[in-house]
Amino acid sequence: MALSPVETPKVEEKVSSEHYEWSQWVLNAPDPPTTWHKLKGSVSNTISQYREMCFALRTRNGPKILLSFLGGIFPILHWAPNYSPTKFRNDLLAGLTIASLCIPQSIGYATLAKLDPEYGLYTSVVPPLMYALMGSSREIAIGPVAVVSLLLSSMIEKLTDPAIDPNGYRKLVFTATFFAGIFQAAFGVFRLGFLVDFVSHAAIVGFMGGAAIIIGLQQLKGLFGINHFTNKTDIISVMKSVWESVHHPWNPRNFVLGCSFFIFILVTRFLGKRNKKLFWLPAISPLISVLLSTLIVFLTRADKSGVNIVRHIKGGLNPSSINQIELNTPHIGALAKTGLFVAAVALTESVAVGRSFASMKGYHLDGNKEMVSLGFMNIIGCMSSCYVATGSFSRTVVNFTAGCETLASNIVMATVVIISLQCLTKLLYFTPTAILASIILSALPGLIDINEAYKIWKVDKLDFLACVGAFFGVIFASVELGLLVAVAISFTKIIWISIGAGTETLGRLPGTDLFCDVQQYPMAVKTPGVVIIRVKSALLCFSNANSVRERILKWITREDAKGKIEGTTGSIVQLVILDTSNLVSIDTSGIASLEELRKSLVSSGKQLAIANPRWQVIYKLKATNFVARIGGRVFLTIGEAIDCNLDF
Amino acid sequence: MALSPVETPKVEEKVSSEHYEWSQWVLNAPDPPTTWHKLKGSVSNTISQYREMCFALRTRNGPKILLSFLGGIFPILHWAPNYSPTKFRNDLLAGLTIASLCIPQSIGYATLAKLDPEYGLYTSVVPPLMYALMGSSREIAIGPVAVVSLLLSSMIEKLTDPAIDPNGYRKLVFTATFFAGIFQAAFGVFRLGFLVDFVSHAAIVGFMGGAAIIIGLQQLKGLFGINHFTNKTDIISVMKSVWESVHHPWNPRNFVLGCSFFIFILVTRFLGKRNKKLFWLPAISPLISVLLSTLIVFLTRADKSGVNIVRHIKGGLNPSSINQIELNTPHIGALAKTGLFVAAVALTESVAVGRSFASMKGYHLDGNKEMVSLGFMNIIGCMSSCYVATGSFSRTVVNFTAGCETLASNIVMATVVIISLQCLTKLLYFTPTAILASIILSALPGLIDINEAYKIWKVDKLDFLACVGAFFGVIFASVELGLLVAVAISFTKIIWISIGAGTETLGRLPGTDLFCDVQQYPMAVKTPGVVIIRVKSALLCFSNANSVRERILKWITREDAKGKIEGTTGSIVQLVILDTSNLVSIDTSGIASLEELRKSLVSSGKQLAIANPRWQVIYKLKATNFVARIGGRVFLTIGEAIDCNLDF
Repeated sequence: MALSPVETPKVEEKVSSEHYEWSQWVLNAPDPPTTWHKLKGSVSNTISQYREMCFALRTRNGPKILLSFLGGIFPILHWAPNYSPTKFRNDLLAGLTIASLCIPQSIGYATLAKLDPEYGLYTSVVPPLMYALMGSSREIAIGPVAVVSLLLSSMIEKLTDPAIDPNGYRKLVFTATFFAGIFQAAFGVFRLGFLVDFVSHAAIVGFMGGAAIIIGLQQLKGLFGINHFTNKTDIISVMKSVWESVHHPWNPRNFVLGCSFFIFILVTRFLGKRNKKLFWLPAISPLISVLLSTLIVFLTRADKSGVNIVRHIKGGLNPSSINQIELNTPHIGALAKTGLFVAAVALTESVAVGRSFASMKGYHLDGNKEMVSLGFMNIIGCMSSCYVATGSFSRTVVNFTAGCETLASNIVMATVVIISLQCLTKLLYFTPTAILASIILSALPGLIDINEAYKIWKVDKLDFLACVGAFFGVIFASVELGLLVAVAISFTKIIWISIGAGTETLGRLPGTDLFCDVQQYPMAVKTPGVVIIRVKSALLCFSNANSVRERILKWITREDAKGKIEGTTGSIVQLVILDTSNLVSIDTSGIASLEELRKSLVSSGKQLAIANPRWQVIYKLKATNFVARIGGRVFLTIGEAIDCNLDF
Repeated sequence: MALSPVETPKVEEKVSSEHYEWSQWVLNAPDPPTTWHKLKGSVSNTISQYREMCFALRTRNGPKILLSFLGGIFPILHWAPNYSPTKFRNDLLAGLTIASLCIPQSIGYATLAKLDPEYGLYTSVVPPLMYALMGSSREIAIGPVAVVSLLLSSMIEKLTDPAIDPNGYRKLVFTATFFAGIFQAAFGVFRLGFLVDFVSHAAIVGFMGGAAIIIGLQQLKGLFGINHFTNKTDIISVMKSVWESVHHPWNPRNFVLGCSFFIFILVTRFLGKRNKKLFWLPAISPLISVLLSTLIVFLTRADKSGVNIVRHIKGGLNPSSINQIELNTPHIGALAKTGLFVAAVALTESVAVGRSFASMKGYHLDGNKEMVSLGFMNIIGCMSSCYVATGSFSRTVVNFTAGCETLASNIVMATVVIISLQCLTKLLYFTPTAILASIILSALPGLIDINEAYKIWKVDKLDFLACVGAFFGVIFASVELGLLVAVAISFTKIIWISIGAGTETLGRLPGTDLFCDVQQYPMAVKTPGVVIIRVKSALLCFSNANSVRERILKWITREDAKGKIEGTTGSIVQLVILDTSNLVSIDTSGIASLEELRKSLVSSGKQLAIANPRWQVIYKLKATNFVARIGGRVFLTIGEAIDCNLDF
């Protein structure tokens, strides 16, 4: 494959026959499957699977296959038979640890969702049990989470004020939870798991950071004991609210109590990080804070001197809430929208957490299956007085660190919460609300990932823009707007890159037959008289076809002008090779623009050749007769295209 | 680069030192330009160009450079000095031919735009003259066109009824024309020419076809002489209108007159196609029809027995309309929207027509420059009683066929129209409106391109969907909705393809060092123990990273299972090579998913290698330390990656 004709005629013959054979490989590839074909194949595949299952059920292997089918839906059937006492010991320890973290967090998040504290505890009972049956992750700890609680309350309190009509508000929350569950399950059933991927990693980092700050600001209410607090979540409204409360009397005891236990929790966390054996210390420190502060208030009766306390928590197990789900309400549209937003955020958090631990332990987590489990869990949950639950980031980390083996740790946790609901709620009467605020505050630093944001800035400036957009959207506007901004920026980026696709010129790497970008590999050598161009995109379509054509023509004009100045033989461009190796698809606009390129080249006496076209591309070029119009100059490699077309 | 280790140690040493060198090429490529760098470069480039120009102006070469600068804005300065009598003869012939087609069409399109006939003629005077000064195409014939006239009237008559307040309606039309001109010029000045490319070729084919049918339906009013006609454009409203008029008295004379001349025009067109020398016959047949039918009505006084006639056409040159442009109207928002839609449609038609003839004659048409010319032409036009003009498809074809050489043919045409406005308008008093309808009808078949639609269907089913969507959107809803549908489908397709990006496995083509898709090249041979995978996309980003990772893991699991059944040595996958040769960019989600892939592979004792990464990709992989984490297994070619990693 030398540039100059090969010396002996025999070798040349061999080379050209080889070239001929290679070109035939390109030109005579089998037809790629059509869209219709692919669709038919996928449908008939599903049907045949179903038929096989029916057939297997009818034969004697039936029960076994049924079990495997049920095992697909309820993975517990797979792992429960092999469950061992050792595993149980580990799961018991992990379960007790996350339960001690879960009880104070649940009460705190319930206040964030503007519900009574017991609803947070309810949400830590039914959803974890349901997930233990259906979930396929081994580490996720299920329950209420901060971001979802905030999103839910910020969107629903626009419809009904929870302070005026707590019953009506609760009904709307359960209905929104029902919608969230339906959406999650539907995403999974219709295999729309990829929809969650629409929110890019960078946008999630920004969104979570913004949400953490917003949640932290909401805690100022509890920490300062402010009575008149804004219903809005943006930083300006909250700050105004705090500023106005300065003129009202406020009680510094709340602040002192909250702050001292916040510092206690931070110290235990620091100790836990320094000494890996003390991992349980930060996990149980919130519970210790609750018990200790409750004891202090009870002994000093500080509630009489202005310390806000939780007061009555309704004891007993989850009551049914089926008749509280109202589908006839005039707010149905707004609730469905809320359900969709909440479903998306909850799925994103849970699936992201589950996946990162699954890949750490080396097993695979099916996104669609996870969505079905989370959806069903919330549908059952909304009928038993639970609001939206999902995989919690902070508790999952603790669960993993405590050495959980299976989802049995979730069952242990739920059992502990049930016992607390039955026996211990009366003990929490004197718990100061400032402690709940400090527990929520202590969970927030895990949501703000400055290192990751810095990494994003270093790697991709456009990604960083999505991150910052989501962050400021959440902080200055609202949680849902921040999410929308994040999605919009992510999509704009895809379209932008697909349109801004430029071209690059290739040169031969010395000592090889490889042709690479001359800017990336400065040692690459250009072939005189030949321009080799590659499109930096997977699509040559309406959005970039014209600009690509114009760039190529401009480049050739410039090369020609350079060649004329130099005046050496063969320096005028004779051959333009389009390396289409990274074009996955081409549309009619793309073909039309190639045709225009061909006409322009022909009119100035140059030739066009195509190197290494992909399946769809060569199929379409053949279908539109473009191959015939460029005189069949389609080659497997660039080297070949040069050898076969250049004679000097 | 054989699979098994090379025989003699010396050669092997050479090979590995070569491999080492090649890998160093990949790893030590210069840093790619950052977004900031690119932006700075483009700005400083523009500034230095400007400085050079200023410097040149100050030196003695000043006048020459000024001339070349002015020549960039007014290309007439380039071609006028070299203008010859031969060229003028050709342009005169072409100009007379298009003038004879232009006069009846202009009157017809003015009625389509719900304006008095003289406004169509005005629009054929000033814009062609302006374009002759500024335009860079040589063939485009400027004037009112059918689709733009319809779009303008259908959007503005929602604001004011032209039958009730013709003066107010006209003011709105001029204001919309002003906006259209501003938008077009702005697109060009800010180099947003690529925005026109957002409407894909397929969508344009569908849109034009739909618009042609809608325009045809509007002609039923003139053809049947219906007085009460709907203001809507969709097929259902129009058909209802026609059906209702059956119950009202209508005059068959209109229909007979219109139909017979419609057949006459079709026959002349057929003759013109059969005999290339008679090309002028179809071009002047509309004018002949107008003159003949006017004579018939004048002689028989058929207007008294119910034939609708044009009546008074105001003679004289374009009056000024500067004071009719109202920017203080409450409709300003709607007019700006109308201007934007009309600007987009007008640009699309003109640039598409101009480009196809430019590539036929082998010269280049700068989209941005064209937009500036068209924009200025419409801004000047709206101040001299013209509505939106653009390059007409039908007249440009006639101009080209008649052998035009330069834009002088447009000047000839405008002159003929001026003479007609001055002297001949009184002659057109008795012209039956049915003739205008039949002239418009006869121009429509050129807009419906069934062959092209069939070609699109054959090449790309998704493209065909955009085509059909635009077609039905225009027919059943409205012109602007059809356009929106077309753009939306086109974009959804880009996003769909970028998300639906699958993966393909590669194999070695026998007798070569090339690795290609095993489905496209069935003769390709897989290497045992190695899985080579390529992503069918230019981006590994948030929208496809997870699905790509899952596909790769699934594929490896399947290969492993197959290998276990076969039980041969090396059939278990040991090495996974990711061919990133067509990945132009990767974002943080993409890198995160590669990291998860690496962890999963490591946990099952497999290795991951990267082959042929592009500039941005290797830069980002280095920046995030991913290269170090895969043990520096980055190679220039797949063959190398196999040689260096497989030892058996």
